[in-house]
Amino acid sequence: MRNLIFLKIGGSLITKRKPYTLNLKKIREIAKEIVSLRRKYKFKLLIGNGAGSFAHVSAKKFKTKKGYINEKSKIGHCIVEDDASTLNRILVKELIRAGERAISVQPSAFIFCSKRKIKSFFLEPIKNYLKNDLVPVVFGDVISDEKLGCTILSTEEIFKFLAKFLRPKKIILMSDVEGVYDSKGKVIPEINKKSFSKVQKFLKGANKIDVTGGMAHKVKEAMEMTKGGIDVFIIGGKKGNLEKCLKGEKIGTRISF
Amino acid sequence: MRNLIFLKIGGSLITKRKPYTLNLKKIREIAKEIVSLRRKYKFKLLIGNGAGSFAHVSAKKFKTKKGYINEKSKIGHCIVEDDASTLNRILVKELIRAGERAISVQPSAFIFCSKRKIKSFFLEPIKNYLKNDLVPVVFGDVISDEKLGCTILSTEEIFKFLAKFLRPKKIILMSDVEGVYDSKGKVIPEINKKSFSKVQKFLKGANKIDVTGGMAHKVKEAMEMTKGGIDVFIIGGKKGNLEKCLKGEKIGTRISF
Repeated sequence: MRNLIFLKIGGSLITKRKPYTLNLKKIREIAKEIVSLRRKYKFKLLIGNGAGSFAHVSAKKFKTKKGYINEKSKIGHCIVEDDASTLNRILVKELIRAGERAISVQPSAFIFCSKRKIKSFFLEPIKNYLKNDLVPVVFGDVISDEKLGCTILSTEEIFKFLAKFLRPKKIILMSDVEGVYDSKGKVIPEINKKSFSKVQKFLKGANKIDVTGGMAHKVKEAMEMTKGGIDVFIIGGKKGNLEKCLKGEKIGTRISF
Repeated sequence: MRNLIFLKIGGSLITKRKPYTLNLKKIREIAKEIVSLRRKYKFKLLIGNGAGSFAHVSAKKFKTKKGYINEKSKIGHCIVEDDASTLNRILVKELIRAGERAISVQPSAFIFCSKRKIKSFFLEPIKNYLKNDLVPVVFGDVISDEKLGCTILSTEEIFKFLAKFLRPKKIILMSDVEGVYDSKGKVIPEINKKSFSKVQKFLKGANKIDVTGGMAHKVKEAMEMTKGGIDVFIIGGKKGNLEKCLKGEKIGTRISF
């Protein structure tokens, strides 16, 4: 879709460090910003939110990514899914309140895995939402897995998968860092296939409780997303950044093939 | 599945009449009862919850069942889906707290309609949950519709559809009435194909704000569910009723083919 943007809202932006606490002020600011930008620039939008201090904590406790590894894994599966959905639901509610036609779409209901690989899926609802200019809101979720019992797919992994079918124009990953930092702590403006391997060595986990792997994971997934000619941007969450990125101004780190 | 029970928990049991108010005491009582019965009788379970004073109110306001009929329909779609999901999420959280391996499965993410008929669907996650003895919890939801934009499928309609593929042993519809009442207000113990048309004339809407049609709808859907040889029971929500129904004691109204 020519006019489609994927926007990830990092969990670290919308939650506070203390487990299960929200940054409601930031959620509301982002919601307002999205509504006003959509009115101004008339683009279609798919949002994904990270887990922040909600599901990352429980997912780490139960090692949910590894599947059913002990007698606590199944209740862990349920708790982590509930934590992930709960944050998503709060975000969707605030988007609606701000005037956005936002609608939650639960990844664990439309994706099925086998040994962490997506085996089957169902995209008709999302496609129809986008056709009608609704804003589907997905999230990193616990996915049912025929071999492991369950696993976790991060928001980036879900974006990578959805990008193949929905072909967004741009993917924007907005988080609490201003982009990908080099070894001196400066934002790297551009990463492409050539520079990727050099950059990788500077990458560290952005957040120690991020079970899905932090910045190293983000950039690896972003690099894969670019394969279809889609540019990926890693930007900070400061108000105004999103508009700059939409307008094509230099901001954060641009990752291209 | 020989050992599978579908249980609908009526929205009227778990919410109060005032819009968006919960009957949390009842939710917790039912959650405890389910956990203890599952331990005692070792059956597999799929739960569906009604909308009660949550989504019925907004669905009526926006006429969401009819689809995109005016300029408010799309935001209505989002609000009604959010209301329906919110109540489901509260129920799932309480089931988990009571010790049940309950997991929400959002119908709008795995069902797609065309003119209110289910056109395509995705059942792998639910099937895998049941295989692993998790308890999927579905709900009456706003479903994306390729012709209408959106529509509503009630919990009963979703049960009817799922029953075809999952073949439960028994379907139990638990609500704030003790069964199907006759013209004198007495519970009719049995309805079958023969007596169905006679019974229908006594049926009135159970709840004026129920957008999905009240008791008349319930019995019609129940009659259709029995076609595969599955017995459907309409019972009251009093503590102890569920156990009686599971044990095969006479309770409420039994609907069979």
